[in-house]
Amino acid sequence: MGNPIKRFGVSLDRDLLDNFDVFCRKAGYASRSEAIRDLIRDRLINEQCHDEETEAVGILGLVYSHDTPDLTETLTRIQHENIHIILSSSHIHLSRHNCLEVILLKGECGTLRSVAEQLISIRNVKHGKLVLTSTGKDL
Amino acid sequence: MGNPIKRFGVSLDRDLLDNFDVFCRKAGYASRSEAIRDLIRDRLINEQCHDEETEAVGILGLVYSHDTPDLTETLTRIQHENIHIILSSSHIHLSRHNCLEVILLKGECGTLRSVAEQLISIRNVKHGKLVLTSTGKDL
Amino acid sequence: MGNPIKRFGVSLDRDLLDNFDVFCRKAGYASRSEAIRDLIRDRLINEQCHDEETEAVGILGLVYSHDTPDLTETLTRIQHENIHIILSSSHIHLSRHNCLEVILLKGECGTLRSVAEQLISIRNVKHGKLVLTSTGKDL
Amino acid sequence: MGNPIKRFGVSLDRDLLDNFDVFCRKAGYASRSEAIRDLIRDRLINEQCHDEETEAVGILGLVYSHDTPDLTETLTRIQHENIHIILSSSHIHLSRHNCLEVILLKGECGTLRSVAEQLISIRNVKHGKLVLTSTGKDL
Repeated sequence: MGNPIKRFGVSLDRDLLDNFDVFCRKAGYASRSEAIRDLIRDRLINEQCHDEETEAVGILGLVYSHDTPDLTETLTRIQHENIHIILSSSHIHLSRHNCLEVILLKGECGTLRSVAEQLISIRNVKHGKLVLTSTGKDL
Repeated sequence: MGNPIKRFGVSLDRDLLDNFDVFCRKAGYASRSEAIRDLIRDRLINEQCHDEETEAVGILGLVYSHDTPDLTETLTRIQHENIHIILSSSHIHLSRHNCLEVILLKGECGTLRSVAEQLISIRNVKHGKLVLTSTGKDL
Repeated sequence: MGNPIKRFGVSLDRDLLDNFDVFCRKAGYASRSEAIRDLIRDRLINEQCHDEETEAVGILGLVYSHDTPDLTETLTRIQHENIHIILSSSHIHLSRHNCLEVILLKGECGTLRSVAEQLISIRNVKHGKLVLTSTGKDL
Repeated sequence: MGNPIKRFGVSLDRDLLDNFDVFCRKAGYASRSEAIRDLIRDRLINEQCHDEETEAVGILGLVYSHDTPDLTETLTRIQHENIHIILSSSHIHLSRHNCLEVILLKGECGTLRSVAEQLISIRNVKHGKLVLTSTGKDL
């Protein structure tokens, strides 16, 4: 069915293997296979997201002060203008003045980057960071 | 009161300023000042998050297949064990098989990294990425 | 003449300015202007090097064991095949077995990345890292 | 003798393996084993260099205009003050005005970062970038 498991052998110097085993244990991996799958997927996703046209999932975190007049409205307006790529948005109260808004997006990497830039550049958005990950397909 | 605005002068070669103005326009900044504030905050936050003991906000995205037996339970259990640093968690359906879980955390950078590692290393979590940002204090 | 100095004002909250001043002092900047010029150039260069066709300078570090038969020959051969983008190459003895080879390149970002990949992927090259920077033009 | 080769099995979904094989071919890897060794070493080195006290090798690239009075003297003076961690330095003429200086260093990560910062922050150093890699030991 669908996606059978394949198996192959890997050879390593003993010193490198010892170091890798320490890493796996520290990071909590149940097996070397699982750690290697994660290393492979991470590299493949990095390569894919370098390409502007790959479909990806974006996680955008924005830290801002909600005291600012019009800021919330501006953030909401831009999100609505890009409704076709925005999956959801959640809001956390960090302190008396500061909020964290986390916006989830899905679309072409180039589009995600440019919408993120537009939101990050708004006055009084203190910090913004976009992370791209995979839609999970073929991984 | 509290946090007055300060003003100072910056000098730049004309060529560099021209290039910077193009960047500001493209990224959507309303003024050079706002772009410079963002560059400064971004660098300060990077420095801070290098230190294991700084209090920070973490955004952790996990892509996984919900078909896996016990995976959801394991994710939930680990989150509950770390309840004091977990702010919220949201779940998005990416496709028939794949989910995106976005977990927001607040605590010392070192702790955030190690809890994220523990979640990312779980079998059948296909990809995980942690981003650290500021709690907004003093920025 | 050529490239006159321009001056403009930047406004910042006092808290942010205080934090920035601490950063400038710690990093050794003689003035805020110099620190801001560095932040601007660094961001512009990052944007430019994202584009495959920008001309850039590459610094490629390779760590390998010189005991490996044919490795030095393979490294030399690939460098000669790409002679038009390779500026120089220097070799450091790190330990009894390990060497560091640092290769300087100049050309389009996409080409630099693909030649670097070809060298890094050679068997017994233990680690390779490519850094892209600017040719210095217009900065 | 010394460092025998160890072999173990890795299991992967077929889709992931197909994607990995495409990556290996594109990047020029002769075998999956070699690609996996590179992924493992890269991750281990990243972890190690996060720790301020790990001994590492640094490659520092500086782009600057050699027209600036005293700049070359300042660069040389700081290098001599840190002679115990500086392995070598090479100089490339990028254009009529711009130079690239590549300085190789070996020492604790924390020390390498702080000497790099001191050099990068000098006025008229237009861009500086430090890359940390391994001394090759146990990899």
